[in-house]
Amino acid sequence: MLEHKDHFHGSDLEKIEVAMGIKKEEIVSFSANVNPLGLSEELKSFLSERLDVITSYPDREYTKLRKAIGNYIHCDPEHIIVGNGATELISLFLGALKPKKALLIGPTYSEYEREISLSGGIVHYYFTKEEQNFQLDMADFLLEAKKDYDLVILCNPNNPTSTTLTRKELSLLLSELDRQNCCLMVDETYVEFVEDEASVSAVSLVNEFDNLMVLRGTSKFFAAPGLRLGYGITGSSRILSLIKEYKNPWTINSIAELAGCFLFQDQTFMKATRELMEKERDFVLRELSAIKGLTVFPTTCNFVLVKIEKEGKDADMLFEYCIKKKMMIRNCSSFPTLDNRYFRICFMKHEDNLALIKAIKEAMN
Amino acid sequence: MLEHKDHFHGSDLEKIEVAMGIKKEEIVSFSANVNPLGLSEELKSFLSERLDVITSYPDREYTKLRKAIGNYIHCDPEHIIVGNGATELISLFLGALKPKKALLIGPTYSEYEREISLSGGIVHYYFTKEEQNFQLDMADFLLEAKKDYDLVILCNPNNPTSTTLTRKELSLLLSELDRQNCCLMVDETYVEFVEDEASVSAVSLVNEFDNLMVLRGTSKFFAAPGLRLGYGITGSSRILSLIKEYKNPWTINSIAELAGCFLFQDQTFMKATRELMEKERDFVLRELSAIKGLTVFPTTCNFVLVKIEKEGKDADMLFEYCIKKKMMIRNCSSFPTLDNRYFRICFMKHEDNLALIKAIKEAMN
Repeated sequence: MLEHKDHFHGSDLEKIEVAMGIKKEEIVSFSANVNPLGLSEELKSFLSERLDVITSYPDREYTKLRKAIGNYIHCDPEHIIVGNGATELISLFLGALKPKKALLIGPTYSEYEREISLSGGIVHYYFTKEEQNFQLDMADFLLEAKKDYDLVILCNPNNPTSTTLTRKELSLLLSELDRQNCCLMVDETYVEFVEDEASVSAVSLVNEFDNLMVLRGTSKFFAAPGLRLGYGITGSSRILSLIKEYKNPWTINSIAELAGCFLFQDQTFMKATRELMEKERDFVLRELSAIKGLTVFPTTCNFVLVKIEKEGKDADMLFEYCIKKKMMIRNCSSFPTLDNRYFRICFMKHEDNLALIKAIKEAMN
Repeated sequence: MLEHKDHFHGSDLEKIEVAMGIKKEEIVSFSANVNPLGLSEELKSFLSERLDVITSYPDREYTKLRKAIGNYIHCDPEHIIVGNGATELISLFLGALKPKKALLIGPTYSEYEREISLSGGIVHYYFTKEEQNFQLDMADFLLEAKKDYDLVILCNPNNPTSTTLTRKELSLLLSELDRQNCCLMVDETYVEFVEDEASVSAVSLVNEFDNLMVLRGTSKFFAAPGLRLGYGITGSSRILSLIKEYKNPWTINSIAELAGCFLFQDQTFMKATRELMEKERDFVLRELSAIKGLTVFPTTCNFVLVKIEKEGKDADMLFEYCIKKKMMIRNCSSFPTLDNRYFRICFMKHEDNLALIKAIKEAMN
């Protein structure tokens, strides 16, 4: 029996390795939400030929990297800050905002709460409702948000519910929050997996609203969690200049700097990812929906939340069944309001998805 | 004419590139203090074959990496914290200590002051004296340190003076500071360049003193500033557990994690570096000492501080003369108590050292 199996992060494969005697390289992670295409051969050759960048400090201003990101997301590089993963960017933004009281839309990724608590702020949650498929009830939410919050954080699409707000809804929300001097931080870690990304992403809104901060990264869509390369976008020159004052130099290493410049213009990789995801999302959703005792929540990104509603079955049991077959799912019981009836899986390559569906079917019988 | 030429960091080659129209790849940096041997071919093949580590999160605990460091410095991995360069480690230690008043031994690297100020502490300097070749007068220093400081920081060997305290002197200092509940942070960025490293390094003292924190890295000796891989050592379980609470996960990327495991056991590279340094240090010191109008301060590491004492000549002039020949020296006028008569150079490959000596001779005539 594994301990704390519901808290395993995608990076905790080492612990599984020790607990189960399975080599971590052999485990297919349906838990990490990482694009299964991995790195392209072109990127690998590109990096291999340029490893000598390690002997130089990265560019303190990351000018080329920010320009590459600007081209990719159609945004002025001056509005972009690069950071060591989303974690550093959250810290940097919180350092500038110093929020006293933040409202998080939950259930969601736990790092926001951790970072706010570390910076001395108070965290409140507004929980979306399962009856509404965890979709945000905007009118009801705005009643709560009217209270004395100075920051609202949401993940869009949201982890683990995969619910999504449209750009129009975000625009409405930003207007309302602006009136009460409240900022909005939108984590778009998964936005590139959404088919109609432009209708969902808030990036273009930084030109209209200076109470907006957007977080993005390379860990999931670009399959590069090992790079530790994230970026933040804001139109607020006040926030940008505050961050410049205390930001540590060179938190992104030279390889990540170089890889970013390659990735953000790799249209072939992006197209292949979108095609794979569309196909596999359809396939997995159809198969899961056909399994008795499972409720499958809607998704437009690269993962899906599922509820087990069958006597004697739960996510603990399913986790254990799957990990023995070297497949790791995410038991969602550590997310507030969810419990061990909920699990999350991401869409992997077809043969892996087939194997997981087979295992889930077996476990549910 | 270059602006702010005295403040150029080794990573600011981009600015030189723009200002001078010289490609940064063509500039030999005698300013960055980086080992001229660069990366070994073995390390490059090792990394090239393993670039897929980018698709995984680094190990949250960095167990293998800390073990490799532990073997390298003969220290319990439990006493080691890894971080994104010395900067993150300084922040982490300061976050645990929250020093109200710190005493820095100057002139020295400016990052300590910046980090303490950012964390809300007050910085005082004790300046070593040129008449004593900038060597610390321990008895006099202890009189000052007896005042109400809670932290002393020193760089050993010190940048830019290359002065060094022995392990025995550090042990005495630690005893004295311990009595008044004051911690000591020793930055050993350059210690591996010292021939008799064991007589200088404070690492083994962490077993005796829990008011000691040692900082080390891979930027200089291992020629890998682009990795952003540093480590800190302390025997204080209080500091270690505090840091664990608020440390961001995964600030070292997967490539750096992997490269570290290779570097710290690469005896061939270490031996070659020491041999090169010994030879080139002797050569450059002999040549510089023979140039009229230069005072060359003693050094046992990989760089040397030099003072220009000739009418009409200064480091501004010398910087400009050398950069036109694609060689960058460090004008030391930004260091408190020094001015534009002082410059610092590190020892590079023989042909580069030859070229620099030639240029300095020309410029001094």
